[in-house]
Amino acid sequence: MAVPTAARATLAQQRIETPSWAYANSGTRFKVFAQPGVPRDPWEKIADAATVHRLTGVAPTVALHIPWDRVEDYAKLSAYAAEQGVELGAINSNVFQDPDYKLGSVTNPDARIRRKAIDHLLECVDVMDATGSRDLKLWFSDGTNYPGQDNIRARQDRLAEALREVYDRLGDDQRMLLEYKLFEPAFYTTDVPDWGTSYAHCVELGEKATVCIDTGHHAPGTNIEFIVAFLLRANKLGAFDFNSRFYADDDLMVGAADPFQLFRIMYEIVSAGALAPEAGIAFMLDQCHNIEAKIPAIIRSVLNVQEATAKALLVDADALAAAQRSGDVLGANAVLMDAYATDVRPLLREVRADMGIDPDPIAAYHASGYQKRIEADRVGGTQAGWGA
Amino acid sequence: MAVPTAARATLAQQRIETPSWAYANSGTRFKVFAQPGVPRDPWEKIADAATVHRLTGVAPTVALHIPWDRVEDYAKLSAYAAEQGVELGAINSNVFQDPDYKLGSVTNPDARIRRKAIDHLLECVDVMDATGSRDLKLWFSDGTNYPGQDNIRARQDRLAEALREVYDRLGDDQRMLLEYKLFEPAFYTTDVPDWGTSYAHCVELGEKATVCIDTGHHAPGTNIEFIVAFLLRANKLGAFDFNSRFYADDDLMVGAADPFQLFRIMYEIVSAGALAPEAGIAFMLDQCHNIEAKIPAIIRSVLNVQEATAKALLVDADALAAAQRSGDVLGANAVLMDAYATDVRPLLREVRADMGIDPDPIAAYHASGYQKRIEADRVGGTQAGWGA
Amino acid sequence: MAVPTAARATLAQQRIETPSWAYANSGTRFKVFAQPGVPRDPWEKIADAATVHRLTGVAPTVALHIPWDRVEDYAKLSAYAAEQGVELGAINSNVFQDPDYKLGSVTNPDARIRRKAIDHLLECVDVMDATGSRDLKLWFSDGTNYPGQDNIRARQDRLAEALREVYDRLGDDQRMLLEYKLFEPAFYTTDVPDWGTSYAHCVELGEKATVCIDTGHHAPGTNIEFIVAFLLRANKLGAFDFNSRFYADDDLMVGAADPFQLFRIMYEIVSAGALAPEAGIAFMLDQCHNIEAKIPAIIRSVLNVQEATAKALLVDADALAAAQRSGDVLGANAVLMDAYATDVRPLLREVRADMGIDPDPIAAYHASGYQKRIEADRVGGTQAGWGA
Amino acid sequence: MAVPTAARATLAQQRIETPSWAYANSGTRFKVFAQPGVPRDPWEKIADAATVHRLTGVAPTVALHIPWDRVEDYAKLSAYAAEQGVELGAINSNVFQDPDYKLGSVTNPDARIRRKAIDHLLECVDVMDATGSRDLKLWFSDGTNYPGQDNIRARQDRLAEALREVYDRLGDDQRMLLEYKLFEPAFYTTDVPDWGTSYAHCVELGEKATVCIDTGHHAPGTNIEFIVAFLLRANKLGAFDFNSRFYADDDLMVGAADPFQLFRIMYEIVSAGALAPEAGIAFMLDQCHNIEAKIPAIIRSVLNVQEATAKALLVDADALAAAQRSGDVLGANAVLMDAYATDVRPLLREVRADMGIDPDPIAAYHASGYQKRIEADRVGGTQAGWGA
Repeated sequence: MAVPTAARATLAQQRIETPSWAYANSGTRFKVFAQPGVPRDPWEKIADAATVHRLTGVAPTVALHIPWDRVEDYAKLSAYAAEQGVELGAINSNVFQDPDYKLGSVTNPDARIRRKAIDHLLECVDVMDATGSRDLKLWFSDGTNYPGQDNIRARQDRLAEALREVYDRLGDDQRMLLEYKLFEPAFYTTDVPDWGTSYAHCVELGEKATVCIDTGHHAPGTNIEFIVAFLLRANKLGAFDFNSRFYADDDLMVGAADPFQLFRIMYEIVSAGALAPEAGIAFMLDQCHNIEAKIPAIIRSVLNVQEATAKALLVDADALAAAQRSGDVLGANAVLMDAYATDVRPLLREVRADMGIDPDPIAAYHASGYQKRIEADRVGGTQAGWGA
Repeated sequence: MAVPTAARATLAQQRIETPSWAYANSGTRFKVFAQPGVPRDPWEKIADAATVHRLTGVAPTVALHIPWDRVEDYAKLSAYAAEQGVELGAINSNVFQDPDYKLGSVTNPDARIRRKAIDHLLECVDVMDATGSRDLKLWFSDGTNYPGQDNIRARQDRLAEALREVYDRLGDDQRMLLEYKLFEPAFYTTDVPDWGTSYAHCVELGEKATVCIDTGHHAPGTNIEFIVAFLLRANKLGAFDFNSRFYADDDLMVGAADPFQLFRIMYEIVSAGALAPEAGIAFMLDQCHNIEAKIPAIIRSVLNVQEATAKALLVDADALAAAQRSGDVLGANAVLMDAYATDVRPLLREVRADMGIDPDPIAAYHASGYQKRIEADRVGGTQAGWGA
Repeated sequence: MAVPTAARATLAQQRIETPSWAYANSGTRFKVFAQPGVPRDPWEKIADAATVHRLTGVAPTVALHIPWDRVEDYAKLSAYAAEQGVELGAINSNVFQDPDYKLGSVTNPDARIRRKAIDHLLECVDVMDATGSRDLKLWFSDGTNYPGQDNIRARQDRLAEALREVYDRLGDDQRMLLEYKLFEPAFYTTDVPDWGTSYAHCVELGEKATVCIDTGHHAPGTNIEFIVAFLLRANKLGAFDFNSRFYADDDLMVGAADPFQLFRIMYEIVSAGALAPEAGIAFMLDQCHNIEAKIPAIIRSVLNVQEATAKALLVDADALAAAQRSGDVLGANAVLMDAYATDVRPLLREVRADMGIDPDPIAAYHASGYQKRIEADRVGGTQAGWGA
Repeated sequence: MAVPTAARATLAQQRIETPSWAYANSGTRFKVFAQPGVPRDPWEKIADAATVHRLTGVAPTVALHIPWDRVEDYAKLSAYAAEQGVELGAINSNVFQDPDYKLGSVTNPDARIRRKAIDHLLECVDVMDATGSRDLKLWFSDGTNYPGQDNIRARQDRLAEALREVYDRLGDDQRMLLEYKLFEPAFYTTDVPDWGTSYAHCVELGEKATVCIDTGHHAPGTNIEFIVAFLLRANKLGAFDFNSRFYADDDLMVGAADPFQLFRIMYEIVSAGALAPEAGIAFMLDQCHNIEAKIPAIIRSVLNVQEATAKALLVDADALAAAQRSGDVLGANAVLMDAYATDVRPLLREVRADMGIDPDPIAAYHASGYQKRIEADRVGGTQAGWGA
């Protein structure tokens, strides 16, 4: 299959943001298995993210999570990142770990707690001002566990009110990304359970509010690429939180559970011309590497997104459109599958060589000695995790 | 538990629409099992619907399905219904059974077929003019079976265009109800797969367009009462197609699979003051009685909705709000469960006695001799089914 | 509905085991919200369990979890329980929290770790000898997160080998209960994912091995009462871990999410004559009270099981069998629903009064002052949770 | 990636059975869309199957469905098949389309109907004697739609009794394949809903009874390759009914919805040495080509199984085992993914060239003129479908 030169350039310019917390310890409610060499503070997380970028060439930003990545001086953190060769990316808020949020944050029946939660979100915008971040990512764990526990409509009113206040605080070049999730940690209702809810609030808020799709946050059977296509058409897709799942919000490496789905998602992106940074869609990882080595897992995830993108770029758009127009079901499917069946790893190795990096980032990581170094250096102190 | 007088009046005034096609034969792709006494034409369906209304007192309208219920003279059909004591209700379109619709109706890549489909929808509005029906119910089986088969975004464009044309044809007192469904008969994408898609189109169309919730059309785990609450708050809930399911779109009797869910749905309705006919929400059944006797199954379904409604009316709203405000999770849940645990059948028997009908509609049906009569009378001809 | 005297006696003799860990703190991977008054050691957990039994009359045993409930002297713990009015119940093993178990316990590729895990299971049998417990409950979190991570068949071999060694260690009056779970914490394969796997191993092991059904451990759409019925017929149902869920393994209060399902499960039990203690089926709770008050939640759960049981006992078995025999689908369903629709709370209040306890255990708990007392007394130390 | 010579030989000797009914019309409960050229009788179905075999070289047998493929003289049909270059394969029974089976066939409460159903199954064994078929495939649509409709345990007793009688009728070289399915057409209970049920009955019956896995018959989230591995280990896997699904039993082309899953399944087969015909596992397609051209869809499906098999054969078993042994999660996963990412189409083209057939069977079909011929020839008469 001939590879257009444009595709090579596109692949070299792709941007995938890695999340600071993926470098830290994570686990399930049953157990967090600590790993040697895990960062103890935001600086070390950034060093790891920079390593991933050096090796892959397409991960130039790192998302922060407040308060996990709270520092005294964000300018200094930003400068450190720059030194390391990366930039600070989206700011992720956290209104789910304070004891006050047991029954909700911005949708809590208690006005005092809502105020506290909104204040945290506003603080996150302050951080954005300091870091120069464009995106505020909002995920609310808010919801209820039992029928009757709270008033569903009232919670929507509270949610709308909070979102409005935060939205109004955004600067001209800042955006709000509203994530949705079917369940967990709430087990009966979740206040932003699906894309429809997020979309409706974003439409009401205005153009700076867009939907963030976490690929692991859907009900079984949900066709995610349909949502991607719909939101692209409505100009309301702002970001992805990539990961993969076999069951619930498993947070496995993106592309690990269903690489064909990832390809279909990327094909919607590519075919809508939404891959380029100017299109304004943030492609971020949001994963947990509970049992596998973290940095190689993140590199692997970046490669998986690249491979899916490369395959999407290989789809013969004209042939596809012709088959679709003529109602040739098998022909149209075959055009898509032809791209998917292609082994794009040689192409990506070439792209990397052209970028001046090692064609095999995983092998390069293992050869680099980085892992041994951090395991030796990062001794003492408290390893970062979801709690810190 | 004390029953407020208002609750009794509300129950007596409840309105549940039965669908003409539920009186006809139905089945699965594996087999349609015919039943004796099944109607052979719209007139006989209306006679059956009228029987259900006579016995329950709360099923005064019957939904039609075009072309299954196409007649020469709708005024005559309407007059016949009136004689029988019922009115004609929503008009349901059918753009899924003509061979032309194999790859879609209003979203078909072929403009000629789209035109044909839209013309059918416009014809349905003509029927509404003739029958005096308020509601046009639109369910599109449109979608694709294979990745790549068609362009997801282009299909949304076509959908929007078709909906617009039909919307603009609606009279001042007419409405469009846009149903959604996750899958079946399309097995990869469905063009209106979820409430978000329906909602977004309805918002774009205008206030005469509202969402229709079929309780069997969701992904596993979907919290339907959340959708009800959300749409009520957004003033975009137009109708229910009631039925129940354990797996997919099983179309079992409403309340048969998860009576607690039906109660929770009705509680959202009751608590939003949306039960009264003036609220403009159509409560309709849409079921298949594949193996059970049809008329008794429909009566049973009407009773199930009544029982869920009665329980919802018994919820102590003040106590619930107080518990919710104070964050008393168990207390709030207990208020709701207290109503659910109540046996409301004695209350409903009293309501029926006050309405002058038999307190036990199922027994009354069996005692009426109606079933024997139709089995004896409806011999010869072709029984109605989904194909006719 | 007339209530047979036998039903009253049966209800008074019902036995529901509560789990020591449900009195402790629990949560999700996102946050454990601590509650005041939570026990700090096994003794305090037993005191709470005894309180539940005093108030409900049907919770005479408490399950232990090793190592969370490890003590120096089990005889002393047993004697303390007896003083409090309860007995020690099933021993639950824990082979999921040691760092060594990151890639599995008894199915780990490393023989040293398998040995360690088996030794823990054998230690649990030692504890059973000391406590006089009949049942060893085995739940294995073992599995893999990524395709290829380990050899599925080899893991079954290792599992079989471990189970055999433990089985052979059981005393004459001891049993093994093998639990299954679809997923979590493993997100690709789980080594005992479904009842079929558990059943197959139990058949191979022998008659002292039986299946434990945790009601929250199934794939969406699974018909649990079918499994109950199947295992009862095969004489391989040993126990229930009761809880309820809307989504995954939510561990909500049993009966809170789908009370009709709980009723259907209990009907299978009742109709098979398997409710009586002599039938050898252990009815246990296994829940997490993350946001609601723990002791009242456990009382509520016990009452929910009682209510479902009472309804099951009210089913008119003769009428049901007659309707089933004659193929009367609606008639048979109506017999079952008639029992379900009955408000059994008055009956249960009478049963409690006959047992000499307060007819309203929840109110009695609130009136007892127990909660205030433990909140005042249990200050300092470390609250028990899943980690301790 | 170097391809072992053995792999080429294995691919050339692979055997995939196509089902006679997949060449006929099919659809959903909403509509069966007829296609031109569809066979009108078993002879024409066999001609189509032979065409698929001529083009692919790996589909040498065709499964029959009784009564859809009932003929006067099976010896003649067999001879006709041989002339065409194929053999008759598994005999599929049908106890779901007679009006008598509305409430079940072998599990029906009515003994007369059970007798009738068993007699049909015995007739199928007679057909096997005549055709020389080894396998009797049993799929029971039996189940219930409503709680209480029938006695779950009694239905198992009836099932066991029927299976025993049929099993005892099998000849020395004949086998019974017991298929399971979660739901549809039964919507509450299904009498053989999962692999556990099928397995348990097969174990009880004896070694001639084995489980048939239809890849579309599971609950969402079910790990099918686990079941494959488990049954292989237990020596109870007899056959596959291949197809694919996004939602329920969609019966799409195998490999179309989740090619990675198909690869994982085939890897379990390959790694257990169970691909060879001597291993006794029948690999069959069971699909519906509702909207796509049927013969090319079947060819595509055969190719999809071949491609998954080829990738499975490329897995570096030694490297995989080494990574697994050392607990290298990412390394083991990478070994598997390396094979999956390989484009095996060139290899398969070579294998086909070596077999003396066209390297591109789809193109060869289109070039053959077969489709035009059957469309011209098969005019008049009644097209075959599920009803005939």
